[in-house]
Amino acid sequence: MAIKSKLPIGILGATGMVGQRFIQLLEHHPWFEVAWLAASDRSSGKAYGEAVKWRLDTALPDRIARMIVSPADPVGAPKIIFASIDAAFAREMEPRFAAAGCAVVSNSSAFRMAPNVPLVLPEVNADHLRLIEEQSWRKESGGYIVTNSNCTAMGPVLALKPIDDCFGVEQIFATSMQAVSGAGYPGVSSMDILDNVIPYIGNEEEKMEEETLKLLGKLEGHTVRPLAARMSASCNRVAVIDGHTVSVSIKLRKPATRDELLAAWAEFRPLAGQGLPTAPEQPIEWAPQDDRPQPRLDRNRGNGMAVTVGRLRPCNVLDWKFTVLSHNTIRGAAGAAILNAELLASLGKLEPGVSRDGSSSREWQPVAETAARA
Amino acid sequence: MAIKSKLPIGILGATGMVGQRFIQLLEHHPWFEVAWLAASDRSSGKAYGEAVKWRLDTALPDRIARMIVSPADPVGAPKIIFASIDAAFAREMEPRFAAAGCAVVSNSSAFRMAPNVPLVLPEVNADHLRLIEEQSWRKESGGYIVTNSNCTAMGPVLALKPIDDCFGVEQIFATSMQAVSGAGYPGVSSMDILDNVIPYIGNEEEKMEEETLKLLGKLEGHTVRPLAARMSASCNRVAVIDGHTVSVSIKLRKPATRDELLAAWAEFRPLAGQGLPTAPEQPIEWAPQDDRPQPRLDRNRGNGMAVTVGRLRPCNVLDWKFTVLSHNTIRGAAGAAILNAELLASLGKLEPGVSRDGSSSREWQPVAETAARA
Amino acid sequence: MAIKSKLPIGILGATGMVGQRFIQLLEHHPWFEVAWLAASDRSSGKAYGEAVKWRLDTALPDRIARMIVSPADPVGAPKIIFASIDAAFAREMEPRFAAAGCAVVSNSSAFRMAPNVPLVLPEVNADHLRLIEEQSWRKESGGYIVTNSNCTAMGPVLALKPIDDCFGVEQIFATSMQAVSGAGYPGVSSMDILDNVIPYIGNEEEKMEEETLKLLGKLEGHTVRPLAARMSASCNRVAVIDGHTVSVSIKLRKPATRDELLAAWAEFRPLAGQGLPTAPEQPIEWAPQDDRPQPRLDRNRGNGMAVTVGRLRPCNVLDWKFTVLSHNTIRGAAGAAILNAELLASLGKLEPGVSRDGSSSREWQPVAETAARA
Amino acid sequence: MAIKSKLPIGILGATGMVGQRFIQLLEHHPWFEVAWLAASDRSSGKAYGEAVKWRLDTALPDRIARMIVSPADPVGAPKIIFASIDAAFAREMEPRFAAAGCAVVSNSSAFRMAPNVPLVLPEVNADHLRLIEEQSWRKESGGYIVTNSNCTAMGPVLALKPIDDCFGVEQIFATSMQAVSGAGYPGVSSMDILDNVIPYIGNEEEKMEEETLKLLGKLEGHTVRPLAARMSASCNRVAVIDGHTVSVSIKLRKPATRDELLAAWAEFRPLAGQGLPTAPEQPIEWAPQDDRPQPRLDRNRGNGMAVTVGRLRPCNVLDWKFTVLSHNTIRGAAGAAILNAELLASLGKLEPGVSRDGSSSREWQPVAETAARA
Repeated sequence: MAIKSKLPIGILGATGMVGQRFIQLLEHHPWFEVAWLAASDRSSGKAYGEAVKWRLDTALPDRIARMIVSPADPVGAPKIIFASIDAAFAREMEPRFAAAGCAVVSNSSAFRMAPNVPLVLPEVNADHLRLIEEQSWRKESGGYIVTNSNCTAMGPVLALKPIDDCFGVEQIFATSMQAVSGAGYPGVSSMDILDNVIPYIGNEEEKMEEETLKLLGKLEGHTVRPLAARMSASCNRVAVIDGHTVSVSIKLRKPATRDELLAAWAEFRPLAGQGLPTAPEQPIEWAPQDDRPQPRLDRNRGNGMAVTVGRLRPCNVLDWKFTVLSHNTIRGAAGAAILNAELLASLGKLEPGVSRDGSSSREWQPVAETAARA
Repeated sequence: MAIKSKLPIGILGATGMVGQRFIQLLEHHPWFEVAWLAASDRSSGKAYGEAVKWRLDTALPDRIARMIVSPADPVGAPKIIFASIDAAFAREMEPRFAAAGCAVVSNSSAFRMAPNVPLVLPEVNADHLRLIEEQSWRKESGGYIVTNSNCTAMGPVLALKPIDDCFGVEQIFATSMQAVSGAGYPGVSSMDILDNVIPYIGNEEEKMEEETLKLLGKLEGHTVRPLAARMSASCNRVAVIDGHTVSVSIKLRKPATRDELLAAWAEFRPLAGQGLPTAPEQPIEWAPQDDRPQPRLDRNRGNGMAVTVGRLRPCNVLDWKFTVLSHNTIRGAAGAAILNAELLASLGKLEPGVSRDGSSSREWQPVAETAARA
Repeated sequence: MAIKSKLPIGILGATGMVGQRFIQLLEHHPWFEVAWLAASDRSSGKAYGEAVKWRLDTALPDRIARMIVSPADPVGAPKIIFASIDAAFAREMEPRFAAAGCAVVSNSSAFRMAPNVPLVLPEVNADHLRLIEEQSWRKESGGYIVTNSNCTAMGPVLALKPIDDCFGVEQIFATSMQAVSGAGYPGVSSMDILDNVIPYIGNEEEKMEEETLKLLGKLEGHTVRPLAARMSASCNRVAVIDGHTVSVSIKLRKPATRDELLAAWAEFRPLAGQGLPTAPEQPIEWAPQDDRPQPRLDRNRGNGMAVTVGRLRPCNVLDWKFTVLSHNTIRGAAGAAILNAELLASLGKLEPGVSRDGSSSREWQPVAETAARA
Repeated sequence: MAIKSKLPIGILGATGMVGQRFIQLLEHHPWFEVAWLAASDRSSGKAYGEAVKWRLDTALPDRIARMIVSPADPVGAPKIIFASIDAAFAREMEPRFAAAGCAVVSNSSAFRMAPNVPLVLPEVNADHLRLIEEQSWRKESGGYIVTNSNCTAMGPVLALKPIDDCFGVEQIFATSMQAVSGAGYPGVSSMDILDNVIPYIGNEEEKMEEETLKLLGKLEGHTVRPLAARMSASCNRVAVIDGHTVSVSIKLRKPATRDELLAAWAEFRPLAGQGLPTAPEQPIEWAPQDDRPQPRLDRNRGNGMAVTVGRLRPCNVLDWKFTVLSHNTIRGAAGAAILNAELLASLGKLEPGVSRDGSSSREWQPVAETAARA
C-alpha cells in the first residue's frame, strides 16, 4: 500500500493506559500519524505532556507532549478516530463521531455486542467488517464504528480460531490471570495486589464469554450468528504489569491429535502477504518449554502482537487444555485497534467518501497487498 | 482429652518451610511438645537456630533455637514423627521410622497413593485411617504412616466434600493460582515470579487430580475406591507468599440450588465437639463479597485452618463454579498433619502399644471428646 | 489501672487505612471501647460494614460492622477522639472537636508542628504533653489536641532517643523505603509499584526532618526547642504492604562504641512497669542477623509496636549507621495514637473535667501504674 | 570504524544472567560476533539452548541456541573474552585466559581492585586502560584483563564524574535499592523479596565504596590514586527485576548552584563523536519530574546504557542530594563490558599482536572515530 502521505488520526481517551499505547505504537507508523488528541474535560486545553501521567517505559515523543488536548468533539477532529474510553462515555461519544463521518475504530466495550457493529480481530473474522454497511451513520455520513474485543478474550480467540476451523469447538473453559494494566491507571490499588490475587473483575467474565462467541461466529445476512459453543470464563487479577495468562480447556466436535493441533497453530497465518504493518508474522507462537508462556518473558513476542500458546495436554474433563498469553494493552487493546484500522485501510474503507454506498467492488476479505492496491 | 503430660513429638525435615510451620504451630500446643528435630546431614549436629533460615513472621522460640538437630534416624527419636521431606528421601526414611514403631504423620508425597496408606483430611475421610491396620509395620512394631494431601488439593476437597455428600460430584475443573511458599525455600526464584505467572508446577496437576479423588473416595475392604468423577487440574504459580487460590467448576449428579450449596457449606462441621485443638470451628467459611476470597485477606481465617469459599455462580459448561482459598503451609501442610495427629490421638492411636492388633473397640470415626476418653 | 467500665472513644476517619487499624487494635482493648465512628459525608449514615473497604487480614468485628457512621461533628461524639484524616480536613475539624471539650488524639499532620500542640511518642517525650495546657481549648472546654508523628519518623526517632540521651546526636541521615499502606487506600497505584521504586513521597522528607527534631527536642517554657541537629531525609516507596525500612547514619557528639550503642538500645524501656496496655515490653529490638530487619519478618514484633534495629556498623562519612524498621500503620500511626491515649489516661487527662486548670498535682512524666492511680 | 569482518568473541559464564545479556546485546552488534560460549562443567558439551535457563524477554537467537557450550579453557577460545563469573572462579580462570593471549573484558569482581588492572567506565576514566601495560600477561602473550565496576557503583559514578570534574566531591553518601537480577539466577528467593526489603547484600557496600573511588581516581605512574573522598554506602534489595535506584548525597569542595550541576550533567558527553556503537548519546539523562527516575519507567533509556538522575535538591547534612538510576545488567554489567571492548577496539588494543610492547603511538584517550582509524 503506497501511502503518499500519512493519514491523520485522532485518539479519543488519549491520556489513559490504552491511549498511551496508541501513541507509543503509532510513533513510527508508516500509514497513520497522530494529529489530534482528546481526553476528559479536565485535560482539555492542556499540553498533552502535562495532562498525561505517562506510564510506559519508552519516552513520550516530544511532538506529542506539546500537542494541546482537544475537547471530545468531532468538530476539528480527523476522520479516523481511535477510541478507548469508558463504556458510559463511549455510548454517548462514539455515535457522535460516527455521525460526523468518522471511522471510529474503538477499543471501548459499549458497542461490541451491538448487532450492526463489527467486533473484529483481523486474523479471525475480517469479513465481519461488512457489518458497518448496516450502520445508519455509514449511510448518512460515511462514518461508522468498528470494535475490537475485550483484552482477555483476544488470546483465547486467536488460539481457538484455527482449532475451530479444523475440528470445531463446542465447549470452552477459560480461567484468566490478568495484568493490572488492564484496569487502567491508577486502576488496581497496590494494597489489593501485592501478595495477593483478586478473583473477580467486574463484568469481565460476561464480556469474555459473549465476545468470544461473537468473534468466532459467522456473518449471516445482517448480523453475526455466534459460535454454537458453551463457554465458561473465570477471571482473576494477579500481580503482573502487562500480559494476560489464560488456562483454557476445550471440547472438540471432531477428534484431534496433539500434532494436528500444533500444526493448526503453526499454519495459521491468515494475514500473510497483505502488508499490514502491525500484523505479526506468526500470530500464534508455540512455546515448547513446560513452564511457558510466562507474561514477563513472552508478552512482547511479535512486538506484543503475537499470542503465545504452551502446555498443550489432554484434559480429563473436556478434550485438550493449554495456556495462552497475550499482551493485553498491545494485542488486546491499542494494537488490536490499529490492526483493525490497517485492515480497513487496505480495504479502502478509511478514505473519506469511498464506498459510502457499499457498492465497492473490493472484497471484504483482506487480500494480498498488491492486489488490494492495484 | 485430659493429657497429663504432653506427648513428645519429632519433626523430620525441620528446617524446611513446612518444618518451620510445625514449630510455629506447635509452640503452644496443648497435647504435643517438640522434643526432637531432624534435617539433612548438612544441618545435623548444629543448633537449630543456626541450621535454619527462619522465614516466618513470628519469632523462632528460644528453646527450639537451642535444640541440636539430630540425624534422620529413628534411634533416639520420639514415637510420633511429623515428616515433611522430599519424596525421594521420604520413600527411604518414612518406612524406617514406621518400622521402628513410630507413628509417622507425613506431609510428604511419597506414600499418599499407596493402597494401604491413609490419605486423610479429618473433616473429610477420618474413617480411612483404619488403613493403617493394613500396614505390615503396624503389625510388627506398632508403627505406621498416615499422610495428608498436597497443599493445593486441600481447599477444593474440603469445599467439595459436603457438596458430594448431598448432591454427588461427577466432574471437577480446578485452576490454581499458588503461593510461592508451596515450593519451599529458596524455592521459586524472584526472577521467575516478579511481574510474572508460571503456568506450570512439576507433577502438581497429577497429584491434585489423584489425591482429590482418593480423599473423596470410599474405604472398601482393604483399600480406598476413589470417587468416580473426572477431574482436570491446571496449576499456576503467582506472586503470593502464602495462600493457594483455586477456581473450581463442578458438575453434579443431582441438581442443587445456590442456597442448597451455601447451606451445605455452612452446616459442614464434622469435627464439632470433638475437642481437636487445631480444628477450626467453621472449616468452610463463606465470603459474601464479590471479590473474595483473597489470599492476603483471608488466608488466616480459623488460624489458617479454615478454607474460604466465594463467588458461587452458575457455570455455562458444567453446573456451578466458585473460588476456594486455603493457607497452603497451614491448612495445606503443617496444620493438616497436626490435625491428623490430633485425630489419631483422640482415637487412641498415638500411645505406644495401643491397638497394635487392631482389635480396639474404639470406633475409627472420631467421636465427641468425652466419649472418646471415657 | 482498674478501669471499672471502658472509656468510650470515637474515631474520626474511620474508613481509612489507619481508621481500620484503630478498630482492629481496639477490639479487645482493656480501657477503651469504640463507641462512635465518623467518616466523610459519602459514608455518613451507612453501616460501617458497607461504608468501609476493609483491607486488614483479620475479620471486621460484627458489632463494628453494624455501627452507623456518624457525620464528622462533635455533637453526640464521645469525649475521646482518635483522628486520622487529611491535613486539610483536620485543620478544620480537629479544632472543632477540641473546642467541644474532646481530647483529640490525632494521627493527622495538620497540627504536629504547632507550637502549643504536643507531638509525642510516649517512650521519647512524654513530658511534652504538658503543652496541652497552652491550648486555648483546654482552658475553655477542657478539650485539646495531642499528635503523634509521621509514620516514617517514628522508627528512627525511637532508635535515636537512647543514643541521643547517652551520646548526643548532631547529624542524621535517613533514607526510607516505605510501604504502600502509608499512602492509604487506594493510595499507590499497582502500576506504579510493581517492579518499581518511587523515589518521592510528597512532603514526606520535610515532615520527617522537622518532626524528628521536635520529638527529640526539649520542652522549654511554653514550647519545644527542637534538637540542635542537622537532618537529611530521602523518602522512597517500595513494593511492601506494611513496614517502613530506614537506613540511618548518625554523627555523635561523644564517641560511642558498638557495644555501648547496643546497650543503649537494650536498656531503653522508659515505660516499663507503667501498665500501658499497648506499650511493647522491649520498644527497640535488636536483630543480630546480617540481613535483618526485614519488613515481612519483623514488622509484627511487639504486636507491631516494637521497632527493630539491625546492621549497626561504622559509617565512613558520619560515625555509625544502622537500619531501623517499624510497622507504619501500627507503631507509626494507630498504635502510636492509642499509646498516647493510654499515657494520657494514666496521667488522668482523659476523664472529663479533670485537670482543666492545670493545677493537678499529678506529674506529667508517666509513673508506675499503681502510683498514678493511687 | 570500518570493520571488514566482525571480531569473534567468547563469553565465559554464558549461562548466567549477565552472560544472557551479553548474548542479547551482541546479537546485532556491528563489530563483535559471538563465536564461543563457556560455562560450568555442568553445561559443557550441551547445546546452549539446553544448558541455559533463558530469562530475558527477547527470544534466544537460534544460532546461539544451537552452539555447543565449551569447557572454560583458553584452548580454542577466541582472543576476545567477555567474562562474568564468580569471583573465586574468576580468580583462577581469568589469568589463564590472559596468559593465553586473550583480552579478558571482565565483569567479574576478582581483579577490579588489583593495582595493575584497569577498572574502567569509558565515559569516566578511559585513560586508566593504560594499566594493562603493567600486566605481565600483556608483556608475555599480549593478553590482559580489563574490568568494569560493580553494577551498583556504575550509576553514582557516572553522575558524580562531571560534578567532581567541576566542583570536587569530598563526601558521598549512597543508599541503594537494588534489583534482584543483580544477584543472578536463581539468586534471590521469592520468599525473601515479595512484600519485603532485604537491607543487606554481601560485600556490596565495600565494593561500592572502593570501586567508586578507584573509578574516580587518577592514573599516576603505575597505578591509580583513588579519589580523596569519604564514601559511605548502604545497600538494600527490593522487589524490582532490573534497575538499581540509588539515593545520593554529596559534599563539594567548591560551591555549586543547582543550575550548574544540571549543566554539568547535560554537557557531559565525553564519548561524543567516537562512534562507539554501545555508547549512549546522552550518558546522563535528567528527569525533571518530582517522582523520577523510576526503574520500571527509566531503566531502558539509551538502550539501557544511559543513567537517569532526578530529584536534585539541597541536603541538610552535606550539600546536595539526588537520585540516580541505572540498568544493572546492561549499563551495570554486560553493556559496560561491551563498551569497554568497543573502546579497546577503537584504541587498537583488540587486534592480536598489536601494541604488545606498549609502544603504539596511539593515544590512550579515545579520540574521534575517523582519527582513530586513520
